Amino acid sequence: MNLENILKKEKIKVGDWIEVRKEKEIFKGILMPKTKLSHPSTLILKLENGYNIGIEVDEKTQIKLLRRREIGIKKEEIKLKKEEGKPTVSILGCGGTVASKVEYVTGAVYPAFTPTDLIQSFPRLEKIANIESEVLFNLFSEDLNVEHWKIIAKACVKNIKKNVDGIVLMHGTDTMHFTSAALSFMLQNLPIPIVLVGAQRSSDRGSSDNEMNLISAVLTAAKSEIAEVTVCMHGSINDDYCFVHQGTKVRKMHTSRRDAFKSINVLPYAKVWFIEEKIEYLRENFKKRDKQRKVKVDLKMNPRVGLIWIHPNINPKFIESLSKFYDGIVIAGTGLGHVPTNPFKDKLAKSIVPALKSLIDSGIPVVIAPQTIFGRINLNVYTSGRILKEIGVIGDYCDWLPEVALVKLMWVLGHTKNMKKIKEMMLTNIAGEISERSEVE
Amino acid sequence: MNLENILKKEKIKVGDWIEVRKEKEIFKGILMPKTKLSHPSTLILKLENGYNIGIEVDEKTQIKLLRRREIGIKKEEIKLKKEEGKPTVSILGCGGTVASKVEYVTGAVYPAFTPTDLIQSFPRLEKIANIESEVLFNLFSEDLNVEHWKIIAKACVKNIKKNVDGIVLMHGTDTMHFTSAALSFMLQNLPIPIVLVGAQRSSDRGSSDNEMNLISAVLTAAKSEIAEVTVCMHGSINDDYCFVHQGTKVRKMHTSRRDAFKSINVLPYAKVWFIEEKIEYLRENFKKRDKQRKVKVDLKMNPRVGLIWIHPNINPKFIESLSKFYDGIVIAGTGLGHVPTNPFKDKLAKSIVPALKSLIDSGIPVVIAPQTIFGRINLNVYTSGRILKEIGVIGDYCDWLPEVALVKLMWVLGHTKNMKKIKEMMLTNIAGEISERSEVE
Repeated sequence: MNLENILKKEKIKVGDWIEVRKEKEIFKGILMPKTKLSHPSTLILKLENGYNIGIEVDEKTQIKLLRRREIGIKKEEIKLKKEEGKPTVSILGCGGTVASKVEYVTGAVYPAFTPTDLIQSFPRLEKIANIESEVLFNLFSEDLNVEHWKIIAKACVKNIKKNVDGIVLMHGTDTMHFTSAALSFMLQNLPIPIVLVGAQRSSDRGSSDNEMNLISAVLTAAKSEIAEVTVCMHGSINDDYCFVHQGTKVRKMHTSRRDAFKSINVLPYAKVWFIEEKIEYLRENFKKRDKQRKVKVDLKMNPRVGLIWIHPNINPKFIESLSKFYDGIVIAGTGLGHVPTNPFKDKLAKSIVPALKSLIDSGIPVVIAPQTIFGRINLNVYTSGRILKEIGVIGDYCDWLPEVALVKLMWVLGHTKNMKKIKEMMLTNIAGEISERSEVE
Repeated sequence: MNLENILKKEKIKVGDWIEVRKEKEIFKGILMPKTKLSHPSTLILKLENGYNIGIEVDEKTQIKLLRRREIGIKKEEIKLKKEEGKPTVSILGCGGTVASKVEYVTGAVYPAFTPTDLIQSFPRLEKIANIESEVLFNLFSEDLNVEHWKIIAKACVKNIKKNVDGIVLMHGTDTMHFTSAALSFMLQNLPIPIVLVGAQRSSDRGSSDNEMNLISAVLTAAKSEIAEVTVCMHGSINDDYCFVHQGTKVRKMHTSRRDAFKSINVLPYAKVWFIEEKIEYLRENFKKRDKQRKVKVDLKMNPRVGLIWIHPNINPKFIESLSKFYDGIVIAGTGLGHVPTNPFKDKLAKSIVPALKSLIDSGIPVVIAPQTIFGRINLNVYTSGRILKEIGVIGDYCDWLPEVALVKLMWVLGHTKNMKKIKEMMLTNIAGEISERSEVE
């Protein structure tokens, strides 16, 4: 009997709690929906530890229903009173693991996301702020692109006009730092905080970080002075504080740790102490909250920009071919900003300078960023850097992240095709993406 | 009068100490050779702080000779006695900043590199070991490729056969971690240490790190038990100790800091205390020195491998086109190992799965590594990971660095074109590139 028939026979549906016995192992968990590509005999189970596993079902495998998924139980929507004197925070859902507690509690495959759902899952929210909420979309963050950034930016503007005191974006962590950079360029001169938040572990695992991250983000949005786009995530592997990172200076630096997000080349703006509900500022060079300030909205972006990592034996013809796919290129150079240039005319080395020059000559700007992640580009120390400068590579003295340089070039190319203007805009510090000097040495 | 004529008139040549007065500024330094691309009126000066600057020379600029470059002064080659009972270390020159003290002292544009030169520059070397030396080539490390790795590997084998006690490779820092990974696969089962060393600051700067790094590397090669390929570089921003990093688990993580090199997902093998000349082991899971052990030399590599960074709006057609340039691809995925897969069929999202599948179907292996740098790939947590697994992407549960996955795939493709065999070899831990579990969590 095949998997489909076993499930039919046992009347087991997606979302049910089941027990699977295979050989000597017993697995308990929630039956997950099949993916388009999954094998017909593979069952996907969400274990109690929160991880999903695939189990190959054979003739001897036993499957038993433990508990029916609770669907159709209509929860009563609590009438939330808006308390005067309490700040109002809009929570906008953009997908990701952080929403999974709601999902888990309600049993929905897509998260329910009314203020009631949120407050039932995270009761402390109610004490901090009047909560409003809306789902913009529910996607893995690796699927987001320029079009989604525009949807988020427009929703932020709508909420700013509604006069809320802060905005929290629940977002997948994988590309959260791309989105925070994009919003930093699209929405300048903010009157209130816009705080992105996510979770590294789903809420049905003991070590989940989503409650602390969300509460801290709402605190930041409701009460902090930081009227900038920021990312609020665990600051350590303990449940003690979150960091509030500058949106253009943050990067996901670990696949799974709760404190995966790190500020790069700068200090975070603040620490948010979870228990104490205290915001401790680590630096002060941010725009202060001011509801009279008018946000400057500029959503124009050209999505045809590529990020290319330099490495030994990178093929010069591959570099040349980029003109077919992209209108601008960010290269993540080695060290202070280098690529194979072969100034000593070594017989075995191959320069990619002619290929880069051909891109630039055909009107495609080439921007450089450090693949070391930390530190600042300097094209003046070594010959190879000077060669790049001379052919017009943009980025000398910039300490931007490769990801942020990519997003900025998309935004700049949304505004001009003129190479001189592109260079001028790229080298202008627009959203704190270039530090005057690295604060953290 | 143009620059060339001024220099002719003043009889100033490359290598001379000169003074340049432009407007109200005075610069002193060594006149550097012009690059092919430098502007005819730009003079390149190596300042006393070690940095080179370009100065635009106009009619009012004054140039004065301060001190003639000391060339033609033949140093007496000291007859070095080989002391019995003292270990012998071969220092092989592969270029980079670390060699610049020698260059600076001798006044040569290319470094002199005899044992005498080395000991004159770094007198402590003589007390640690009998020094032998050879220049293999002198290149910026960003110009090195598979062919240079083979030259280095062969030279190491030659020196192992000469029965030395350890080998030190002086190497540029930009791609040192690519070379250390390559040597780790090419030279397995080592009898003695092979230690790569470089410098982040050239030796004519006060804060130079080359002396401490080189002495520590020679100590490691002469006296440590670590018969592996390692990288020895500053462990902190103080001049107290160096770390000895595992060659497949290290990465340059800062453009300019002296402690730029970090062990990723593991502890370094050891700390080398510079003043005390003490080696403190931080873990013990390495091959111990044993001169009876026979090195396994396997230099076969296919250099046609590309490293592709995943990012929002990456163009699926660009991914497809990679088959024209490469025989294997490493993708640096987001988070636990993700790419745009669009499992929810969002109208605005674009999957690159069909493009990756077309590469794999045409016989091009696709390997995944984490763009977060730290952490481990896990393709089982989210749908997007499972989709990649199902189309045959290689790398589940691997905590390798993107750079190391690239080098390993080059090495594996030097041995087989069979996809099953490629997968098997890639997932076999050959040189410590995959940790059983991440030691540093």
